[in-house]
Amino acid sequence: MIKAAIIGGTGYTGVELIRLLSTHPEVSLEAVTSRACANQLVADVFPNLRGHVNSHFRDPASVKFNEYDIVFFATPNGTAITMAPALLDAGVRVIDLAADFRLKEADAWEQWYGMPHACPDLLQEAVYGLPEVNREAIGKARLIANPGCYPTSVQLGFLPLIENNLVNTNNLIADAKSGASGAGRTANTNMLLGEISENVKAYAVPGHRHLPEIRQGLTKAAGHEVGLTFVPHLMPMIRGIHATLYATLKDSTVDLQAIYENHYVDEPFVDVMPHGSHPETRSVSGTNVCRMSAHKPRDSDTVVILSIIDNLVKGAAGQAVQNMNIMFSLEETMGLEGIAVLP
Amino acid sequence: MIKAAIIGGTGYTGVELIRLLSTHPEVSLEAVTSRACANQLVADVFPNLRGHVNSHFRDPASVKFNEYDIVFFATPNGTAITMAPALLDAGVRVIDLAADFRLKEADAWEQWYGMPHACPDLLQEAVYGLPEVNREAIGKARLIANPGCYPTSVQLGFLPLIENNLVNTNNLIADAKSGASGAGRTANTNMLLGEISENVKAYAVPGHRHLPEIRQGLTKAAGHEVGLTFVPHLMPMIRGIHATLYATLKDSTVDLQAIYENHYVDEPFVDVMPHGSHPETRSVSGTNVCRMSAHKPRDSDTVVILSIIDNLVKGAAGQAVQNMNIMFSLEETMGLEGIAVLP
Amino acid sequence: MIKAAIIGGTGYTGVELIRLLSTHPEVSLEAVTSRACANQLVADVFPNLRGHVNSHFRDPASVKFNEYDIVFFATPNGTAITMAPALLDAGVRVIDLAADFRLKEADAWEQWYGMPHACPDLLQEAVYGLPEVNREAIGKARLIANPGCYPTSVQLGFLPLIENNLVNTNNLIADAKSGASGAGRTANTNMLLGEISENVKAYAVPGHRHLPEIRQGLTKAAGHEVGLTFVPHLMPMIRGIHATLYATLKDSTVDLQAIYENHYVDEPFVDVMPHGSHPETRSVSGTNVCRMSAHKPRDSDTVVILSIIDNLVKGAAGQAVQNMNIMFSLEETMGLEGIAVLP
Amino acid sequence: MIKAAIIGGTGYTGVELIRLLSTHPEVSLEAVTSRACANQLVADVFPNLRGHVNSHFRDPASVKFNEYDIVFFATPNGTAITMAPALLDAGVRVIDLAADFRLKEADAWEQWYGMPHACPDLLQEAVYGLPEVNREAIGKARLIANPGCYPTSVQLGFLPLIENNLVNTNNLIADAKSGASGAGRTANTNMLLGEISENVKAYAVPGHRHLPEIRQGLTKAAGHEVGLTFVPHLMPMIRGIHATLYATLKDSTVDLQAIYENHYVDEPFVDVMPHGSHPETRSVSGTNVCRMSAHKPRDSDTVVILSIIDNLVKGAAGQAVQNMNIMFSLEETMGLEGIAVLP
Repeated sequence: MIKAAIIGGTGYTGVELIRLLSTHPEVSLEAVTSRACANQLVADVFPNLRGHVNSHFRDPASVKFNEYDIVFFATPNGTAITMAPALLDAGVRVIDLAADFRLKEADAWEQWYGMPHACPDLLQEAVYGLPEVNREAIGKARLIANPGCYPTSVQLGFLPLIENNLVNTNNLIADAKSGASGAGRTANTNMLLGEISENVKAYAVPGHRHLPEIRQGLTKAAGHEVGLTFVPHLMPMIRGIHATLYATLKDSTVDLQAIYENHYVDEPFVDVMPHGSHPETRSVSGTNVCRMSAHKPRDSDTVVILSIIDNLVKGAAGQAVQNMNIMFSLEETMGLEGIAVLP
Repeated sequence: MIKAAIIGGTGYTGVELIRLLSTHPEVSLEAVTSRACANQLVADVFPNLRGHVNSHFRDPASVKFNEYDIVFFATPNGTAITMAPALLDAGVRVIDLAADFRLKEADAWEQWYGMPHACPDLLQEAVYGLPEVNREAIGKARLIANPGCYPTSVQLGFLPLIENNLVNTNNLIADAKSGASGAGRTANTNMLLGEISENVKAYAVPGHRHLPEIRQGLTKAAGHEVGLTFVPHLMPMIRGIHATLYATLKDSTVDLQAIYENHYVDEPFVDVMPHGSHPETRSVSGTNVCRMSAHKPRDSDTVVILSIIDNLVKGAAGQAVQNMNIMFSLEETMGLEGIAVLP
Repeated sequence: MIKAAIIGGTGYTGVELIRLLSTHPEVSLEAVTSRACANQLVADVFPNLRGHVNSHFRDPASVKFNEYDIVFFATPNGTAITMAPALLDAGVRVIDLAADFRLKEADAWEQWYGMPHACPDLLQEAVYGLPEVNREAIGKARLIANPGCYPTSVQLGFLPLIENNLVNTNNLIADAKSGASGAGRTANTNMLLGEISENVKAYAVPGHRHLPEIRQGLTKAAGHEVGLTFVPHLMPMIRGIHATLYATLKDSTVDLQAIYENHYVDEPFVDVMPHGSHPETRSVSGTNVCRMSAHKPRDSDTVVILSIIDNLVKGAAGQAVQNMNIMFSLEETMGLEGIAVLP
Repeated sequence: MIKAAIIGGTGYTGVELIRLLSTHPEVSLEAVTSRACANQLVADVFPNLRGHVNSHFRDPASVKFNEYDIVFFATPNGTAITMAPALLDAGVRVIDLAADFRLKEADAWEQWYGMPHACPDLLQEAVYGLPEVNREAIGKARLIANPGCYPTSVQLGFLPLIENNLVNTNNLIADAKSGASGAGRTANTNMLLGEISENVKAYAVPGHRHLPEIRQGLTKAAGHEVGLTFVPHLMPMIRGIHATLYATLKDSTVDLQAIYENHYVDEPFVDVMPHGSHPETRSVSGTNVCRMSAHKPRDSDTVVILSIIDNLVKGAAGQAVQNMNIMFSLEETMGLEGIAVLP
């Protein structure tokens, strides 16, 4: 059994990690920490876990993390950079679900996240944990930068176009719609039901932190700088991301359906739907699936990709478990086989 | 492996049965029928099942139901009464998720359901499938009347009070709140999102079909006629029932917490929360749990019971699977161990 | 023109007051204060007011409230008690939309609100601003305690039964369902969309601050102490209260429909629906109407009253404007004629 | 007073027309027809109208439409073309809120709407009722084709760019998000709350009927054919459209803010927000306002326009009233001054 700990378990990413790891057949979840909720029953904070998780949140100061095989950071940005180096030195593997190791350039990171980076040397070692791109490196990694939710859905949607050199990469557009859980569980007037139910809005159009992350991934895939416009929108729902992607085809006669199906034929968590389909976010709720379809509207050279995920699973905790499975040579789908509940 | 079939698989009860049976370790789901969707892929109608269920809906006329060990009716009221007798004669066990066998008196059934009953003789044989009351009889039954969603939450909440003779049974009040999935998947202007989102209303206050069903169960528990007022309300959400129950205590010094905990101490799917708690419907979404708490507001002899379920699971498909497990001497929780997804 | 000011205009009660007063034909809204948002454009905080309200929030320290005819407190509990005495001395009329003057007994107020009352002598002078009960006193009042949202819907529903001595008043039950805006606009994890969408729960069953307020009103109407159980529930919607009220009839042959229609025949803001109706909260959204229907389920001596309001209008800002209209001898409906938007 | 009638008043467009016309100071709403609901009280179908509208739906066969000054068609596509010619001959002015007269080419209309056009000669006479484009022609028109909801938000957003020749018109992209009321009030499984709450999806990506309508308007503005990709999405909410528009700037140094403000400076129902703003759909709910902002993300030559409306008001009934006001030389904002209710 893999001995695992979660640092910062009271957010939405935390509760999903607890749900997935507590039922994972090869994991023993040894500790979940929280400063604010230390000594409270986990199931008192998250009542869905009553009868399944009987432990308490622990103060991080009381936990010897070095004894575990793997530590997950479900903390705000800026926490993992202060603790990861010592854990790695002690031989513990680390998956950071925040953004601390996602950008390769410390300068860019410091600009977008507004703080100095405590261990810039680890940025090159950290493996960006998108298994569909980096599976081999993930298998050998000590430190995983788990991707952001928007970047997961946007990159998985664009990659077949870019890797096959099918589109003009100067004017990529990603119009993304996210449920409110993406903003976390922190008290915030802007995220009250009274503010965002029966309402849709875009936000951060001038620039969102996930923009450099997506651009970095697409640039690597293209082999050159790409031009990307990324507009996130807040939806009146709890979970789910729907990314609608636009690009201009170089050759509008290409068989998109075949290209997408071939690209992801061996991927356990990417589902390319039949020609003409429209994926729905609810169909992946609670699961690690990225579901997509490719469209070329008539009389147009614009390709439209629809790519959906559950922002808290494939966009966070589920992808982290997938990465852990790869790191420990387990079946990649282990503990991630659940079916979305519909309706 | 138990060979199972579902008749009428395109409603919300149907999709939940498919989800639960397709992953049940001791069940082989051999056929799901639908006249309207015959020959369509199940996963085209319910995209959450893509990658999990690869079969097609079948026309019921093409299916030899006698070959199965058990048949589930997820049909409208009035269907099971036309097909169940022949199935039982052929040795097939039957669980009806509609209301055809829930009332013991054919007269009452015909009055509330507005049609003649085709096999009134089976009403006495049919076992009312509430395991917390009838576990032993369920284990020997050929024919199960799976309880309604409201009746499950209301009866489980009231039973400890009534069986222990703690309350006046002349003026029981059940104020129940249900998500919209309780009305099914049929096209209906009244159930459009545009009609019921951002809206709460009571309905059927003069009399709802679940009233005689609840009254029958509580009367049996009390040993005499009970007086019950039942008011259902429609909530702007998909799933969940919250039943708020009121009764007058005969002795207001009784230890409600101990009584409820003792009553359900051995029940795998009833969770009595700690003193002072308020259960939330989301905490059981997708699961077979009935979660409850008992309150006695200060300076009052009124007891308030809060009892929640997922109307499609413990209130329908999950309870049907629980009944099947009992009928076939399987572990009662088999296939029903999932954790609710939160948020 | 009546010169009016609002103290504390950045909450949900505040924005509704601004909306209603800014279009009232006999009011000049001279100042809206906020410490936190001082000098911000009102319409930057509440974008629905763009093009309608061009003023800024002002720091209360900079405002001479004595110059106004009326001051509305849309502040947290405990603010009005510190400022109202001086305003009244200066001849300004005051309507407090918080709870500072709702209870007649200072002891009870201090117990339920957890702070000393700064001006208990004003509790007797303050008029409880429920026009359907106190219209004449409101017309002569200097100081109005605007009722709570739950108390408005519950009292208006129960009053015809109690004033006509039709029910047993020992076991009144009020099961109330409220939208999330009732909890205000303060940042609060428990009110995030991620926490309360797709979810229903009861809260404060052991005792809610609106219980003594309702009990005070019903006791006054009955002429003796009443026994009341009050259970509030949180609904996954923004606005609206649906109160479902239960009582035992002394004479079950009474003509409830006639009694309710007669009781409210002259009331401009109480709408008794036809026999057999079920009011919907959306039908009064944004309006000052309390809509209700009276039911007596068959074979029962229990009466069921369904009473709905918009918690922010008839339950707060609209009722405050109605009170102001009465105080200044204006047409009672002035500025309150809008139609609910449906769907 | 203008004598008006509505044909087909039981849909969502119908109830909004009734709400707006029944309070319009210069209109007498003489008849609202419905075959299905003939002789029912309007307020029994739409309870928000209780106390405001006391008339019944009338069978269209019983109504002499020739006696009215104006007739509004709130009917399905294909109805107005059968009745409008006779009305126009009788001197009645006609506003069709369906699509019967929106496309100038009968061939295109027949292709997209799947039926023959009964009066193609009227297509040229009909004035497309977008006041911001055609105000003068509307003032002289007998027959108005009221624009679709998506086309209103998309055209108003793009027009300043196109009329000022600022963007490449080969690759315009409109990513539009709509509430469920856009699909009308017809019973439809796909629009049940159980299907579309907690869910986001795109639809009709291969081609939507509003595509030719938008393209026609933008082509006229550009003076040449434009290339447009239009992707509609269904949101889990009742009302509102958020159109996110993308185009490539010819000169990325242009002052977008000034251009938008100048373009709409005299428009009573177009609100250009300050630089850097993000409009929210709730801010225009129930009102006739189109609110927008213009963004140029850093390091990019892509312009992003955010344009929102209430699909049932500026996208349907409100715009129809605005057109009527212009046709009858009334103040253009008459009857359309309401403030959105927030929260």
